[in-house]
Amino acid sequence: MSTIKLVLEYDGTAYAGWQRQPNRPTIQEAVETAVFGVTQTKVAVIGAGRTDAGVHALGQVASFRIDHGLSPRQWTRALNAHLPENIVVRSAALMPDTFHARHSAQGKLYEYRILNRPERPAVERDHCWHVHQPLDDAAMQQAGRALIGTHDFSSFQTQPTDNDDPFCHLQRLTIARENDLLRMEFYADRFLKQMVRSIVGTLVEVGQNKRTPDNFTTILGAHDRSAAGKTAPSQGLFLIRVDYG
Amino acid sequence: MSTIKLVLEYDGTAYAGWQRQPNRPTIQEAVETAVFGVTQTKVAVIGAGRTDAGVHALGQVASFRIDHGLSPRQWTRALNAHLPENIVVRSAALMPDTFHARHSAQGKLYEYRILNRPERPAVERDHCWHVHQPLDDAAMQQAGRALIGTHDFSSFQTQPTDNDDPFCHLQRLTIARENDLLRMEFYADRFLKQMVRSIVGTLVEVGQNKRTPDNFTTILGAHDRSAAGKTAPSQGLFLIRVDYG
Repeated sequence: MSTIKLVLEYDGTAYAGWQRQPNRPTIQEAVETAVFGVTQTKVAVIGAGRTDAGVHALGQVASFRIDHGLSPRQWTRALNAHLPENIVVRSAALMPDTFHARHSAQGKLYEYRILNRPERPAVERDHCWHVHQPLDDAAMQQAGRALIGTHDFSSFQTQPTDNDDPFCHLQRLTIARENDLLRMEFYADRFLKQMVRSIVGTLVEVGQNKRTPDNFTTILGAHDRSAAGKTAPSQGLFLIRVDYG
Repeated sequence: MSTIKLVLEYDGTAYAGWQRQPNRPTIQEAVETAVFGVTQTKVAVIGAGRTDAGVHALGQVASFRIDHGLSPRQWTRALNAHLPENIVVRSAALMPDTFHARHSAQGKLYEYRILNRPERPAVERDHCWHVHQPLDDAAMQQAGRALIGTHDFSSFQTQPTDNDDPFCHLQRLTIARENDLLRMEFYADRFLKQMVRSIVGTLVEVGQNKRTPDNFTTILGAHDRSAAGKTAPSQGLFLIRVDYG
């Protein structure tokens, strides 16, 4: 048996998220179908992050175990010939049997894109959140600083969840403006369910002067999802990279 | 009567280009339909550039004449409410009656995007040309310099065309690499039919070492389309901006 690691890029627009569901198209199912197409073997493909419907990835990581002797280069080419045009394997690797895409992950980088202009997007309509009021990104940056470090992030977690550890170490939260585009980066050892989107939705309320930046310390301390703001829509979110030890 | 100027962004993926055609969806028809939806008046909307099927725009300019008293802001909002999600009006303006989107244009900026990596794109599949062999962009840049200036660009013009003046003043041709992405910018007073795509296709042959950079002077002098290389595909091309005096 071999353990295979895949790095995947996908456009999540047409999918009901990563995780397999009855009667709905998912990324996991598409990758498992491609593995079956190559090998005639049914496997369970595990994703590092269970991205929601409409969320994209430039560097999702997935792993599976299989008894098949293809080289990494052969895996990449064969799977790409079987995958639909909105999913692609960037690279494949043979890993030790102890490797598990989700359990072995030590850090993840997400990017959230906001198009901040009066008119709705046309070209990037599936790849950003359109916020038409001008956002005060300096205030958003200031608010974000309160989240850096190790905290109980329950206030930014959507229920129900099967996760019983609300502590995450958020190492980076940056906001960069390129004309109308705000790019926000989030790096942490782990993320709770819809955590990035909950933080983004709340930061945007700061950017619209509906909350003050110092409100974020209160939100963290509440351990209550209702203390934070709305969940930002999924189409602005990209899983950029997953790091391993 | 008022003369209205529109700046348009669109995703050309679903369209057979700018120009109205029987039984095929076009940008021009969609804009004319939106004007009709707002005013119940049939107008001819003129585009600065007749972009091909699959070509996108961030700043196409269009104009039309109409007897209707909306303000620029009202035009923008009303048209955007009627346009499909892949077309948006960025701005509208009231112009002197002498203004004509195509005839008054004094310069246009195009961008061409090449994704240069082994694996095909998933997220940007409709917004770039995928070239999997590594490209020598320094050689491409050197070749492009031969095109700067005023030349007879017949060798980069697709036939048939109704244009009888083959001279263009190419003021800028730049190639910038951001990791796997090559962004090429072209600025000229005017462009011939499929000129940017013909130049890009020929430059890529230089980047693949199928032509030498100095070959470009010979191509220009031939005044013959067969002297140049293949036409690059439409989905990498964006009309960025149109300038007026």
